[in-house]
This record gives sequence, C-alpha cells and structure tokens, in this order.
Amino acid sequence: MSGEEPQQQQEDETPPSLERRVTRAGRHVGDRYVRIVRPIGSGLRGHGGRYVATEQTMAATGTVGRAWQGLSAFLIGKRLHSDAEADERIGVETGLPILASDNISSSAYATEEAMRILAIAGTGALVLTMPIALAVVFVLAIVVLSESRVIRAYPNGGGSYLVARENHGVIAGLVAASALLIDYVLTVSVSTAAGVAAISSFAPEIHPYRVPIGLALIALLAIGNLRGVREAGVAFAAPTYAYIIGMGAMILIGLGRWYVGVVPPIAQPPHPFDPAGTAPLTILLVLRAFASGSVGLTGSEAVANGVPSFKKPEARNAVITLVLMGSIFATLFLGLTFLATQFGIRPDADEIETVNSMLTRTVVGATSPLYFIVQFSTAIILLLAANTGFTGFPRLASVLANDRFMPRHFADMGSRLAFNTGIVVLGILAAIILTAFGGSVNALVPLYTIGVFLAFTLSQSGLVRRWWRLRNPGWRVSILINAIGTVVTGTVLVVVAVTKFQLGAWMVLLLLPLIVALLYSINRHYTNVQDALVISGGEQRLPTLGAPVVIVPVARIDRAAMQALAFARSVSPNLKAVHISLSTEGAADFQRRWERLGSDIPLDIVESPFRSLLAPLLKYIDAIDKSDDRPITVVLSEFVPRHWWEWFLHSQTAMRLKASLLFRPNTIVIDVPYHSHDTGDLGPRPG
Amino acid sequence: MSGEEPQQQQEDETPPSLERRVTRAGRHVGDRYVRIVRPIGSGLRGHGGRYVATEQTMAATGTVGRAWQGLSAFLIGKRLHSDAEADERIGVETGLPILASDNISSSAYATEEAMRILAIAGTGALVLTMPIALAVVFVLAIVVLSESRVIRAYPNGGGSYLVARENHGVIAGLVAASALLIDYVLTVSVSTAAGVAAISSFAPEIHPYRVPIGLALIALLAIGNLRGVREAGVAFAAPTYAYIIGMGAMILIGLGRWYVGVVPPIAQPPHPFDPAGTAPLTILLVLRAFASGSVGLTGSEAVANGVPSFKKPEARNAVITLVLMGSIFATLFLGLTFLATQFGIRPDADEIETVNSMLTRTVVGATSPLYFIVQFSTAIILLLAANTGFTGFPRLASVLANDRFMPRHFADMGSRLAFNTGIVVLGILAAIILTAFGGSVNALVPLYTIGVFLAFTLSQSGLVRRWWRLRNPGWRVSILINAIGTVVTGTVLVVVAVTKFQLGAWMVLLLLPLIVALLYSINRHYTNVQDALVISGGEQRLPTLGAPVVIVPVARIDRAAMQALAFARSVSPNLKAVHISLSTEGAADFQRRWERLGSDIPLDIVESPFRSLLAPLLKYIDAIDKSDDRPITVVLSEFVPRHWWEWFLHSQTAMRLKASLLFRPNTIVIDVPYHSHDTGDLGPRPG
Repeated sequence: MSGEEPQQQQEDETPPSLERRVTRAGRHVGDRYVRIVRPIGSGLRGHGGRYVATEQTMAATGTVGRAWQGLSAFLIGKRLHSDAEADERIGVETGLPILASDNISSSAYATEEAMRILAIAGTGALVLTMPIALAVVFVLAIVVLSESRVIRAYPNGGGSYLVARENHGVIAGLVAASALLIDYVLTVSVSTAAGVAAISSFAPEIHPYRVPIGLALIALLAIGNLRGVREAGVAFAAPTYAYIIGMGAMILIGLGRWYVGVVPPIAQPPHPFDPAGTAPLTILLVLRAFASGSVGLTGSEAVANGVPSFKKPEARNAVITLVLMGSIFATLFLGLTFLATQFGIRPDADEIETVNSMLTRTVVGATSPLYFIVQFSTAIILLLAANTGFTGFPRLASVLANDRFMPRHFADMGSRLAFNTGIVVLGILAAIILTAFGGSVNALVPLYTIGVFLAFTLSQSGLVRRWWRLRNPGWRVSILINAIGTVVTGTVLVVVAVTKFQLGAWMVLLLLPLIVALLYSINRHYTNVQDALVISGGEQRLPTLGAPVVIVPVARIDRAAMQALAFARSVSPNLKAVHISLSTEGAADFQRRWERLGSDIPLDIVESPFRSLLAPLLKYIDAIDKSDDRPITVVLSEFVPRHWWEWFLHSQTAMRLKASLLFRPNTIVIDVPYHSHDTGDLGPRPG
Repeated sequence: MSGEEPQQQQEDETPPSLERRVTRAGRHVGDRYVRIVRPIGSGLRGHGGRYVATEQTMAATGTVGRAWQGLSAFLIGKRLHSDAEADERIGVETGLPILASDNISSSAYATEEAMRILAIAGTGALVLTMPIALAVVFVLAIVVLSESRVIRAYPNGGGSYLVARENHGVIAGLVAASALLIDYVLTVSVSTAAGVAAISSFAPEIHPYRVPIGLALIALLAIGNLRGVREAGVAFAAPTYAYIIGMGAMILIGLGRWYVGVVPPIAQPPHPFDPAGTAPLTILLVLRAFASGSVGLTGSEAVANGVPSFKKPEARNAVITLVLMGSIFATLFLGLTFLATQFGIRPDADEIETVNSMLTRTVVGATSPLYFIVQFSTAIILLLAANTGFTGFPRLASVLANDRFMPRHFADMGSRLAFNTGIVVLGILAAIILTAFGGSVNALVPLYTIGVFLAFTLSQSGLVRRWWRLRNPGWRVSILINAIGTVVTGTVLVVVAVTKFQLGAWMVLLLLPLIVALLYSINRHYTNVQDALVISGGEQRLPTLGAPVVIVPVARIDRAAMQALAFARSVSPNLKAVHISLSTEGAADFQRRWERLGSDIPLDIVESPFRSLLAPLLKYIDAIDKSDDRPITVVLSEFVPRHWWEWFLHSQTAMRLKASLLFRPNTIVIDVPYHSHDTGDLGPRPG
C-alpha cells in the first residue's frame, strides 16, 4: 500500500467489528488488520471473522414465529446439529426391518394378486398359483444374487441410477432414476392401501373410509420421516419381527393341520368370483398372473441402495441382510401360497377381505389371538413398507439434486437432517394417486413393478458392461451372474409391460419419458445459469464502478421521503427526484412545496391523467435509462406499519414497484423502510 | 455558487435528462440549470421536468399483462382520462331512474312485506294493510319534505354522514355512516333477492336456484359499475319508466274493474298462510307490519346524497326529482295495496309467487302480455335498485377514505373513474349476505330499514341544530319541518328496532358499534402515521448523512456476487462481506477462494451447524448493528431467472432475507438483481 494518509482515513471509516468488547488485540488477514472480538449473548460464538451459530440463533422471535417453531418442534422434534448425522448407522438386526420390510411385506399381497388374475379363468385355474409362486421365487433368487454383486461393486450405495449412469450414460441413468421415483411413489400408495385392506379384513365397517384413512396414514408417515431416522430403528424392528414370527407360526400350524389331514371349515370370501370364470385360461393370462405375483420382488433394491447406512463392514452387512431378506420372503410367500391353494381359499371379488386373512381364519379361527396378531402386524409392516418409499424417494431425489437434475431444495437437509422437500413432495404425490385410484390395491398394482424391473434391468446390464470393462479378478463369475440377472429381469419387465399395458402400465410408460425430459431440462437450466454466473480465471478482479445514477420517486414530502432522499444523496451525487401527479393542480402544488425545501436535487414531475402511478414511473425510468449508460438505481421509501393488518391501510405502491423493477435488467433497487414506530430518522442515533 | 471547478465536475456527473434529442436549450429551475427535452415514443409527453403520461404509457408489456388488460378492457371498458369526469352530470329525466329507482322499486315488495306480518294473525287481519300503507306514505311525505331541506342546506351532497358529523360531531357522523354502509350492502342483497323473486313468480322452476342466480346478478352489477356511470343513464331510464307505466296501467285497469264490480277470479297463493292465523292480532304485530311496510321508505336518501351529480341548478333539479319520486312511489304503493286488499289477495307462505304477481294475474290474467311486462320490468327495476347500493356505498366509502376513516384504496379512482375498491368490497359483502340468508327477501327485510332510519334521524336532528345555530332567513319553517322529520323518523326507528329485534335487527345493532370502532381506529392509525411522517416547519432541510455501513452476504463467489460487491463498493467505502457456511470445511474452502480474489473487502464467516442460512445472517447483522451507530445497509445479490417457473429451481433465500429485513428498524436493503439473460455485468454498457 502506498499513500499513508488516505489509507488511514479509510481505515477509520471501516465499521468496527462485531462488538466493542474486544477480547484479543487482533490479527492480520491477508494484508489487512482485523480486530478479533467474541460477541456474547448475540447467538454467535467465535472470533476473528469466523463465527458459529448456536442453537439459540435459531430461536424465533415474534408470536407467530414462536408458535410455528413450537408446533414444528412438537411434530418433528428439535433441530439437530449437522454433526449428529454420523450417529445414524445401522446393523443387520436393524437393517433387516428398515431396508427389507418393503420386500418382506410383499408377501402380504403377492399370493392374492396372482390368484385374482387366475380366478378370472375360474376357480379351477387357482391350482396354477403355486407354480407361479415358485417362478417368482426363482426370479427373486436371481435378483438377490445379482444385487449382491451390485453391493460389492458400489459399496457407497449402488442405486440403479448411479450404476446405469456410470455404465450406460446419463440418459439410461435418468430412465432408471425416473422409474424408481415413480415406483417409490407407488410403493407408498400401494403399501398404504394394502395396510388399510389388512385392517378392513377384520373390521369391514371401515372399508368405505379406506381413502381418508390411507391419507391420514400417509400424513403420519411423512411427519415421522420429517422427524428423521434416528428413532426409526426400534419402531421398525418390533412389528417387522412380529409379522415374520406371527406369519411363520400360522404357516407352521397350517402345515401341521394339512399334514395330519384335519382340514378345518374353509373361510369363504364375502363376494366370490364366478367359479366358472369369465375368460379362458390363456398363456397370456398365466403370464399376467405371474406379472402380478412378481409384485413380491419389489423392494429388493432397497438394501443395495442403503449400503452406506450400514455399520462397518458395510458391504458384508448389506449382503447378509439381502440374503436374509430373500430367504424370509421366499419362505413366507411359498408357505402362504401352498396353504392357500391346498385349502382352496378363493379371493374376494370386492377386495373387502384379503386372501391372507381368510387363510389365517381358516387355520387358527377368527377369534384366535394369533389371527389378530397376524392381521395387525400385517397392517403395520405394510406401513413400514410404505416408509421404504419415504426413505428411498428423498434420498434418490437428493442425489439427483446434487447432480443438478432436480431442484436444489431436494438436497437441503431440514431441521432434523431429513430431506424435507422430498418427503413432502412424495407424500403429496402418493396421496393424490391413492385418492385417484380409490385406495384399491388391485387397481394400483398394474402400475407398480414395471419401474422396479426397468431399474433392475438397467443396473444389471450396467454391471455386465462394468465387469467387461474392468476385468478384475473373478469377473467371469460376476459377469455371468449379472448377465443372467439382466435376462431374467428384462424378461419379467417385458412380461409385465405387455400383460399389464392396458390395465395401467401405459400410464407409467407414458410418464417415464416426460419425467426424463423434465429432469434433463432442469439440468440444462442449472448448467446455463452456472455458465452465466461462473467466473473464468481471467476476470477474478472486482470491477470498479463509478457512482450510480439514482432516481428517487417521491409521493409526498414527508419524513419517509426525506430519509430516502438523504440516503440517496449519501450514496451518489448523481440523483434525481421524480413525482407522479394525478392532476395538473397537484403537480403545481408539489413543485411549490419542493422549491420551499430548497434542495439541490433536480426534480421531474410526471402527470398521470389516467391515474396510474406505476406505469408512468416505469416509463420515466425507461427514459432515463435510455439516456444513460450506467445501471439505474431506484431508491424507494417504503412505509412499514407496526402491525401486519395495517398493511391493508396503505397502498402497496412501493412493493408493486419493487416487483416490477425486479424484472428490469440493470436496475438496482434500494429500499429505505420507514417504520411507524421509529424513534427517529436515519442517521447517527443519540448516545 | 462559489467553487468553480468542483461544481463543474459534479455537473458532469449529473445524469443527462430524459433523452438525448434535446429540442430546446434549457431553463433554470431554482438555482439549477435543467436541460429541457421532449422524449418521443417513450409514452411521456412534455419537457423541462414536467411530463404527462399518455394512454400509451398504460399499455402492458408481456403476455400475461396484455391478456389481463384485454380482458379488463372487454369487461369494464377502456381506461378514461381524468378530465372525463366532468361530463357525467345528469338531469331530472335521467336523475329519476338513476337516483329514485331504489325508492320506487320498494313498491314491488312493501305491500307484501306488511301483509306477511298481518297474515300471521289470520287473513282477516289483512284489512289493516291499507291503513298501514297510508301511515307509510305519511312518513314518506315527511321524509321528502325534510330531505328537500337537506338538499337546500348541503348543495354539495348532503349525505347523512356529512350532516350528522357537522352538526352532532364525529361519532354521530360515524354512526350515520356505518348505518348507511350496512344498509347499502343490504340494499344490494334485498333488491337482488326481490328481483329474483319477481322472475320466479312466473317461472317457479328457477326458485331452487335463486341464490346462484342472485350471485350472478350481483357480479353483473359489480362489473357494470366498474365500467363507470357514463353508459348507465339509458340503461336505467327504459326499465324504470317501463315499470312505472306498466304498474300504473295495471292499477288503472284494476281500479276500473273494481269500480264496475267485475271481479275476476282471484289468483290463489300456491302455499297459503293459515287463514285462522297462528298468533293474536296485537298492537305489536300491527307495529311490526308497519315496520315491514316502511321498507318502502328506503332509498329516499339517494337523491339528497346525489345532488352534485345533477346539472345546474343542482338543488332545484334534485328537489324536483325528490318530489317526483315521492309522488310516484306513493301512487304505486297505495294503488297496489288498495287493489290487493280489495281483491283479497293473500301472500304465499313459501315466497314462491309475490303478491304483486298474483294481483297482476288477477287483474289482467296470467297470459296477458301486460303481466309479463310488469313482472319483467319489476325484476329489472329491482336490479336497478340494487344498483343504488353500488352507487351509494363506493361514494360514501370514498368520502370516508378521504376523511381517513376507511383504507385509502376506497378513494382511488379506477381505470373508468369508478371507485373500484368500494364496488368490489360491496359486491363481496352483498354476495355473502345473500348466500347466508338463502336469498329470502322476507328473512333479509328485518335487518334492513333500521340503518336507513338511524341515518335519517341523525341527519334530520342534525339539521335542527344547524338551523338553530345559523338562524338564516326562513329558519323557523325549516326547523319545524326537520323537527317533525326527526320525531317521525325517530319513532319509526324505535318501532323497527323493537319489533324486529329478535328477527335480525339485533345483528345490525351489534354490528354498528363494531363498525364505528373500526372506522375510528383506522382514523387513529392514519393520524398517528401522519404525525410520525409530517415535517414540522423547522426541519425542512435534508440531513446530510455519511457513507453508510454496508454488509454484503455472499453465498458463492460468482458473477452475481461480484456485481453486488462492486456496487456496494461504489456506494460506500465502509463495507464488509459475510458468508454463511453449513460446514467447517465449506468455511475453510470459501476463505481460500476469497483470498484468491485478492479483494480488500474484509470477510466474516459464520458457520451454521443447524443448516439455517437466514437466522445466523440476521443475528450477524444484529451484532454489526449493535457495534455501529449508523443505519445498516444490506446489499443482496438476487438471481432473477428468465421464466417464472424457473423460480422453483432456485432457493429464494434473498427474497426471504428481504422480507425479514423489511421489519428491522434502521435497515436499508439494496437489491442487485442478476438476470439470467443479462448480456453482461453491471457497469457501462458497450457502445
């Protein structure tokens, strides 16, 4: 630095640092001397230009703010420190209920969904249920095997999006992501609907209210997830294990009764299907039944996506969980299907009672406590499955947001370290879909599974390419496993798409490219903005601007206007006042008052015989702008009332002008508020 | 002027005036030289600091703006120049339909309202209808006489508010004003309901839809009034004269038939009252019937309020109109009542067919064209009566707004010189009341008239005081007339309040003090603000402020931030940048980038481990504010996307910060927008 005197002078004008209670002398930052302070009681800790906000900083002021904060603390809990995130890792025993409940819970309706299709060809066709279940379990085995390879390849969370993107390119990644986003929404809708169906099986009187009950449950899940996952572990474990044990016990009892041949009276559906059937038993119908049954495969991607949530060793724990999940699902699904077909249970045409409910009634009787345990834990585990959607959707959306494919809000963590935007958007979408489909599981299932299998196929085939590219030790086994996975999941995808096309799959197939296009255009927007905003290496210096051209609209010569004019004069010598007058007399009158003020600021008056204030002012600014190269700066004097309702008593001209000027290029707005309870005017306060 | 050089320098920095095409050399304003320009094509005409906005100035830009402007021009017409207001004066022949239609139209339901009460005591009690009608006409004669005095005393429009305020004080004025405001709203609701009843008398199938039809008519009236009164004259004249002539003809035919004794078959009500009556015929019931019949007096204040709308000589024209109005109403009302009682017409308990409809059917037959003319013109004139509310309410509200008793928007003239706010508010209130009372005239009438008579009594007694105070020639006659007026209207007021208290008058009596209190507190707010803002003689000089203390929050070092920093530096040397960081690593990273920038602006970093951007920033500003006496200026860099939907892709931190800072005392906000389609950065543009 060269000149001593002026430098000194400028230093004196620098605002003193945060507080006058200086605890240490100071330090040099760059070639600048900074005083170090430790502000106390202001909600910021720290010194020397580095401060940390405390919990106290977040405390709202004002009645409304405090009330909202109180309500939100009650519903979703107190704000969490960012450091709390690391504590959230899970082991196998917690991972199973959290990540596998979606898949395991599919056993609650997979058998029935297959049966409902076969029953169209008459009750005789139901003997095909067991072979179909075996085929589904075979596919599941392939999927589990392939997914374990995904876990090994992507220990940081191998979402289908990531795998497809890395190995097939961006578009494939976006297709997988869109498919999964759709499926997560459907997971919530279908699982909630199935949970309500489980309850209405033993309490048919709630059946007419299944939509409002479903919506309430979705809201509850959304609130629970806004609270964050910390408390989720225990809440998840109990009902998941209750379901597994309860269903397991029921199956064992059923197998015992079947084995000794003591067949109890068979529960009958309240509204049975036509026993003779309404359509012939074609290959296509069998494939449709298989497609419906393969709803039992959904949710099996959750473990691979959730690898980073596991405790170390993450990959190992994840694979164990995955295998456990597959085994449990297969056992329950085959057991239930076997008993249902052996006992001749038939589905209910009106969806009032589920097949599992009838089976359980048959095996243990409608009054047995086990019946209630099974039905109740079914309802709960289905809600937990819906919760998988609430885990997956926000997480995937945050990944997409970080990659600039979704609005950035989806990547912001809320007060409880959850991705609030994703949770709320998912809840709303699932609620809309649940309502649109009248809360019927059967109506929703055709839309489901197609997304899962599309994602599976893309990620499996992506892995095939990956192994081929890398060829690290053991690649031959891996490539074989994933190639089989690709073929099997691809086949199921085609079967599901073809057999369910008319029933609703067309909606998903139509929506997919639209969502892909949307994600892509969002990305393009962000990239354009980024390109416009980012500074290239050469121009890393702050430009020096001259004093701006300042326009001060003055409606009336009062304290607020004087304050605005005084402030405008303090920032630039190039200023102009302008007054919009509704009448010629008003204009002359204002001119006289202005001259009495004896100010040296030039005044322009615009008469507005059409009684608009805004339009002539904007035109005036345009005219000034045309005549000057410098950016236009408009100083607005805004009256701020003491109470919110007092806004209605003031015309919001300043606000409307601000909104109009925001979209004017090269226009800077300076807002000088005048508070109705100001003790005085701007300028040094007394004392 | 002393120093030459620096003055010259400053002059150069003054922005050149409106346009560079200078038509004249210039002129001196005060001690300052101003260049005079004539901007062409910018929508402003004029020169030398005085400009006039043209119609072109109002032209909206942008698709949405143009569409809105087009729709509004279609519905309410093109914007009018303020000078057009003087053209709107009316003569007696137009004044009668415009200002007297409310009162004259009361003849359409006044007879029936009195009969409905008497019928409670049985059909025999209906013989009392004629005496009650005579009493009502007597009161009307008194009112007309007293009102003619009001016109003479207040030729500039003697609203009850003005008369009461000037002679009894502010509170009495506000009571009169509140009473009238309530009554104008009820005028719209009652007249619309009666108009729909007139139509449903010959088309009973529309009876179930009377509320939606009434709402549509109110909307139509509101739109018509937003268009302004210019076109109203012709539209009003035809149906008013059609009603007078049609009803007059029907009465003449009826009297002829009655005189020659050819009594036709009497039309019977579809749902007659109990002929034996359900209550005894008490004095109170007779008074109630009188109170109901005096609904025929409503609307008679409109002429006195509208004196300034008349052509010269205003007072004379107004008095002629007033007397004509009284005579026409009296003739029709007495004629209708006489025939109805002579022919033994009885009201319909279900309000499906009106008494006038039954009478007309009796006299001329249901298939006669005259029947349709009478019913149709009744419906139209009742709508015109509703329109009186749309004339009175906005006008009174604008007077109150000018006196600072109502929000100032009520005094703003819209694009068609109408008081838009008053029209819209009235329409909404009337619609709410019509809906709440199910569109029933009978249910609404008890609320009505009480306000009118309260206003009458206050203005009549106010005039008594005025004559006593002034004692100008002829004061004795005037004081006598107004004293009688006071006693009579006061008596009717008491009768109406007592007899209709339980039926709904209590609501009005409860609402009145609340509205008075509201008007009063609005006035107090404006007075306080005025006191705070107004400049006393001594401090008429603009204070000189030092360079402000400027804080620039920087989220990321990009073009937008550089622009904000450069602008901040151009307005003050006392600036500080602040960065809110969500993590310690982020803070360190930002610090490095900042240092690479090599700027001399000191930087503070606040870490926010609770992931809030706003709260720590506000706390930081608080801390700076505490340590510095000068007002705080915050420079915000706001990214403005190209399309409105792109807002969803950006977190509105700058906007939320602006909203928070607005309520912070002594805080100025400078908004430096960065437009995504900016050709370049701030600063001199090329060329």
